Amino acid sequence: MSGGMNFEKVEIDEKNYIRVPANKLKSFVKDIFVNLGVDEKGANITADVLVDADLKGIESHGVQRLKRYVDGLKNGVVNPRPNIKVESSLPSALLVDGDFGLGQIAGHFSMNLAIERAKKYGSCVVLVKNSNHFGIAGYYAEMAAKNDMIGIAMTNARPLVAPTGSVEKLLGTNPIAFAAPYRENMCFLLDMATSIVTSGKMEVYRRKGKNLPAEWAINSEGEFVYTPEEALRGALLPLGGLYEITGGHKGYGLAMMVEILSGILSGANFAWKVGNTQGPEKANVGHFFIAINPEVFMPLEEFKKRMEELIERIKKSKKHPKFKKIWFHGERSQLTRETRLRIGVPIYKKVYEEIKAIGRELGLNGL
Amino acid sequence: MSGGMNFEKVEIDEKNYIRVPANKLKSFVKDIFVNLGVDEKGANITADVLVDADLKGIESHGVQRLKRYVDGLKNGVVNPRPNIKVESSLPSALLVDGDFGLGQIAGHFSMNLAIERAKKYGSCVVLVKNSNHFGIAGYYAEMAAKNDMIGIAMTNARPLVAPTGSVEKLLGTNPIAFAAPYRENMCFLLDMATSIVTSGKMEVYRRKGKNLPAEWAINSEGEFVYTPEEALRGALLPLGGLYEITGGHKGYGLAMMVEILSGILSGANFAWKVGNTQGPEKANVGHFFIAINPEVFMPLEEFKKRMEELIERIKKSKKHPKFKKIWFHGERSQLTRETRLRIGVPIYKKVYEEIKAIGRELGLNGL
Repeated sequence: MSGGMNFEKVEIDEKNYIRVPANKLKSFVKDIFVNLGVDEKGANITADVLVDADLKGIESHGVQRLKRYVDGLKNGVVNPRPNIKVESSLPSALLVDGDFGLGQIAGHFSMNLAIERAKKYGSCVVLVKNSNHFGIAGYYAEMAAKNDMIGIAMTNARPLVAPTGSVEKLLGTNPIAFAAPYRENMCFLLDMATSIVTSGKMEVYRRKGKNLPAEWAINSEGEFVYTPEEALRGALLPLGGLYEITGGHKGYGLAMMVEILSGILSGANFAWKVGNTQGPEKANVGHFFIAINPEVFMPLEEFKKRMEELIERIKKSKKHPKFKKIWFHGERSQLTRETRLRIGVPIYKKVYEEIKAIGRELGLNGL
Repeated sequence: MSGGMNFEKVEIDEKNYIRVPANKLKSFVKDIFVNLGVDEKGANITADVLVDADLKGIESHGVQRLKRYVDGLKNGVVNPRPNIKVESSLPSALLVDGDFGLGQIAGHFSMNLAIERAKKYGSCVVLVKNSNHFGIAGYYAEMAAKNDMIGIAMTNARPLVAPTGSVEKLLGTNPIAFAAPYRENMCFLLDMATSIVTSGKMEVYRRKGKNLPAEWAINSEGEFVYTPEEALRGALLPLGGLYEITGGHKGYGLAMMVEILSGILSGANFAWKVGNTQGPEKANVGHFFIAINPEVFMPLEEFKKRMEELIERIKKSKKHPKFKKIWFHGERSQLTRETRLRIGVPIYKKVYEEIKAIGRELGLNGL
């Protein structure tokens, strides 16, 4: 698939999208943040995380979200120049104060810290409090894999998910990302919400005017709802669904694990208390990162060889008749990125106009 | 619920069960292991893990499994006197060689090591290779919580689960257990297979002569099967089910994460290579443990207070009309344990006869 062929995990209806070279898009987004008072380095990191989501085909977490960050910076709930610092630490567990800056800046700082410490001590946990939405969790897990480490990133998020047995939105879609080094330019990369789907997916269905194809959400009476509008008003269901018989309590449990590790333990806001990045209150999101050094256990090359054997055996296994291909996690998103780095990042026209307008207002015409 | 009232998470049909005092059961199981050459301490740990599963209402992982361990010890694939040692280490990441002993012995040793190191360094990862089935993953996570630590335990297992898009059994039910300190004698304790259900559940349905109530398994052609016999011959489905639309790729991804952390990284057998504890080949199971010291981040009492607030709010939220009560993870199993410590552990009559026979053969009449 690699080396020239075009692959995109999401089918793009080109007439509704505009393709922009990734570098141009990134530089435009960076300039916006710089213009709003963010320092060069922080703006660069944040732009990279946002554009990386679009490159990977995770449109819901890409530049479509730019407006929210911009609003947060304008409203003053997001601090453009956070004084990010380690508040307390032992050699392999540290608490970082994000000082209400962009979550991407705190996330990047903290995963780098975890990687550095894991090189020395074997593994390291870094927690962040006083942060904001950090974009795709997979970005930070992948940072570890690019440094030949195993990485995990989690974050809590504003409440959208009903615990098993409840109809109230009390937990976030609380993602778990896990990455392990594999091949050159290709890692194993799981990046999943602990709900069946994210609210971003709901927004994509709304935009396309389509009903939901499965039991993803309930209303305040506990009935399944099938329009994106009702789903966005109601509560999302945890991975496994409404009932215990299909494992819904497991998705609920994973969301709790993420909440405890990133929200409760860090001292950030937790569960129903987590705010929005665009305000009106400070979001105070919490994140969790860990890096593990594989070379404590075996030479890196041996680890990668074992990864290769695992993945290849699965990919070559007997296919289910309803599936076209067997994939490993992160394969499609990384192939999509490879393609889009060559042929440009597709931006939905309305989003393109929106971010162009944000730039224009700041005197930036780079798009 | 606590303090005298009887609660059991599974309804017990008393005429098919015999209640045995927990201590009597544990001492009988311990004597069997000692008789098979296991040292006093290791036998005690293993008996405790097995009986704890029955106490918690996880019958599939309780003394019902005793025969498999006994067979493994008799066949010589399980080493009764393992020389468990740390093979390589940095301060917060260690590799333990389980020397093909009982998984419970290696697991107990390794989680203790993780706890000890986490006290000093803040967090610690311990991996185990050359091990066997270690019982319930939750036992080890709970060890951490009892020591005022946050704990995670994972293990790979013999292949029973089909990756998304495949009809082949290539991954284990690869459990994730997560525990956090909460109240006295009650922790938050998630203990979940990354498949919708375990094979143990299938065995319970078979015994009761009941069909499966949901799409838990497929046959080698990829068709859903609804009898436990077909399910046990076929492949279990990952949490989220067969299709991506219900999140099946997420359960597959979590199973891969567990496989990579406990199987690939430890140097143990992985995925389809993992053997059975009763032989004929050495199982060479791999485990993953981590302990995190909450006091790096905040005083323990503050952490527990925040846990209390999270859990109480969820438990008191508006109930879904199809549910009787909202639970947190580990609540039912710990209440069941409290009850059974008072009124005895229910053992299914056939299982009771089987383990009695195992004892009799070794000259033990303690049951």
